[in-house]
Amino acid sequence: MSKEEKREKFLSVFPKLVEELKSILVGYGMRGDAVQWFENSLNYNTPGGKLNRGLSVVDTYAILTGKGSFKDLSDDEYFKLATLGWCIELLQAYFLVADDMMDKSITRRGQPCWYRIENVGEIAINDAFMLEAAIYCLLKNHFKKESYYVDLIELFHDVTFQTELGQLLDLITAPEDNVDLSKFSLEKHSFIVRFKTAYYSFYLPVALAMYVAGITDAKDLKQAQDVLIPLGEYFQIQDDYLDCFGKPEDIGKIGTDIQDNKCSWVVNTALKICTPEQRTLLDENYGKKDAESEKKCKQLFYDLKINDMYHEYEEGIAKELKEKIANVDESRGFKGDVLTAFLEKVYKRKK
Amino acid sequence: MSKEEKREKFLSVFPKLVEELKSILVGYGMRGDAVQWFENSLNYNTPGGKLNRGLSVVDTYAILTGKGSFKDLSDDEYFKLATLGWCIELLQAYFLVADDMMDKSITRRGQPCWYRIENVGEIAINDAFMLEAAIYCLLKNHFKKESYYVDLIELFHDVTFQTELGQLLDLITAPEDNVDLSKFSLEKHSFIVRFKTAYYSFYLPVALAMYVAGITDAKDLKQAQDVLIPLGEYFQIQDDYLDCFGKPEDIGKIGTDIQDNKCSWVVNTALKICTPEQRTLLDENYGKKDAESEKKCKQLFYDLKINDMYHEYEEGIAKELKEKIANVDESRGFKGDVLTAFLEKVYKRKK
Repeated sequence: MSKEEKREKFLSVFPKLVEELKSILVGYGMRGDAVQWFENSLNYNTPGGKLNRGLSVVDTYAILTGKGSFKDLSDDEYFKLATLGWCIELLQAYFLVADDMMDKSITRRGQPCWYRIENVGEIAINDAFMLEAAIYCLLKNHFKKESYYVDLIELFHDVTFQTELGQLLDLITAPEDNVDLSKFSLEKHSFIVRFKTAYYSFYLPVALAMYVAGITDAKDLKQAQDVLIPLGEYFQIQDDYLDCFGKPEDIGKIGTDIQDNKCSWVVNTALKICTPEQRTLLDENYGKKDAESEKKCKQLFYDLKINDMYHEYEEGIAKELKEKIANVDESRGFKGDVLTAFLEKVYKRKK
Repeated sequence: MSKEEKREKFLSVFPKLVEELKSILVGYGMRGDAVQWFENSLNYNTPGGKLNRGLSVVDTYAILTGKGSFKDLSDDEYFKLATLGWCIELLQAYFLVADDMMDKSITRRGQPCWYRIENVGEIAINDAFMLEAAIYCLLKNHFKKESYYVDLIELFHDVTFQTELGQLLDLITAPEDNVDLSKFSLEKHSFIVRFKTAYYSFYLPVALAMYVAGITDAKDLKQAQDVLIPLGEYFQIQDDYLDCFGKPEDIGKIGTDIQDNKCSWVVNTALKICTPEQRTLLDENYGKKDAESEKKCKQLFYDLKINDMYHEYEEGIAKELKEKIANVDESRGFKGDVLTAFLEKVYKRKK
């Protein structure tokens, strides 16, 4: 099945879940406007991204159970895995609706942010809450009878809290309107990206598939985590690198991290190696909303050869992760191939 | 034990829970600023209210287990019940931090709303998320080994979603800046107050205590719900009545529902019985931010004798609830006294 077919199949599940969620409201006696509002919020905020997180739940399960392709999964099996995939996409929607409000963002996935839609505004906060609540409605409807039901719930709770912790540290370390580079460090950057991104984007899809496949030994979950969290960090470092050094025609956007005072791997690496004079330049120009300041910072990053340091980092981390994967203990049914599939999607990615 | 002593005892538990929650962050490797931030948010937003919801978990449990006073509970037993009580207060904190942002409120419990504190602003959205997440951290730490652990989690999930549904309907029915009385109705008012208030304030504390006491037959949970949801509705209708007809010296504030375009029982009752001319007066004056318009609405409510209708309603609902309580089936261990304790706190309340 091609990548596009996989995506179409996955997308075709979502309307069924929306109907299911709407029927819960109707069951409570809710009618009209409010049901329509919830439906609009679900449809506006949940699909529309790359769906990598959701799709990788199904992919991981197929690898773990030795089913070469999606076609070997029964319809029921597929629907269950896809439902968990959509639960991650709902979690992501919950975060993004809120993040866009906190960052005062303008657009998301090529359309206006939800809170900027007419009549929505601050109601978006409650809509974010309801996107999160939808996860637990779906888990209850589809997994209550499974022995691992409580594990799924706890996994979502834990990962949600971890993501919120990462978001908190990011928000207080790099407020857009108050530049203070003394708060930055590579250690904080590592914490932020692991908590804000790696747990929910990399570890969560694999752990969910492992529970359904019955591969749930704590040692195996740890093997997955030990590769996927540093891999998620690598992914985000790469994202930071591409924002500064990537070609706009490759990455499909123009980087704004410098002007936005982002606590990026690039500036943190620069802060670690720069001279006092270079530090002054950064203090005076990083996070400023003008192209001239941005240009000065970028030139400094080139002078410091941050791009070379990135390539060194990339080779080092890829080697380290490949070794870890080669040493995975498969005796209880876990498979290193699951991790290889993730690494291959990240390594030398240009967009 | 006096009411004040009960409150003090309950309050003394909270700092221990804060330490426990902080230690989770420290366990994740989080340090400094961010841990302090979370502690500040917990302390600023969670205690400080009347704590009726939290206290009633302990009260209900004492009645159910035939323990006349708090002193008959062992320290461990008390701590567990109080922890559940604080979980409701955390849920309330989560809602209030967000509601204040959505309503653009200025103060809460006599201090500035959290989002209006310096450097907080929109970060309050993430803080609200973390207040919610704290509930599930505490449940995991203290109840994971109990047979009813998953029931507690599902109860919190269900009640959270119900509250969000009530909030949604309220927000789209009565936006502060767009008066449209054709959207109002007594049926919608009933749905809003039951979902937005009654489930989490009345049913949740009793259901939590029932699980710990081992009184968990679906019939008993239903007996509790069948009284507590209408009782919660009565409480809110009373609140709406007092906002318009209560004396400021009794209720401790000056009512603002008319100017704030609130979907209150008072205006909904008026809409049901008014003449077309009176309706025009309401359309032209309700929800307007001036004292003159407010006065016209209030005069109309007096002309329509809404206050008399309230007293009729109050006598009717109190009688109905007393009858229901008298008919409670106590054969499986549930006790009507639990419900009487709640009714007595509400009946003829003036503040």
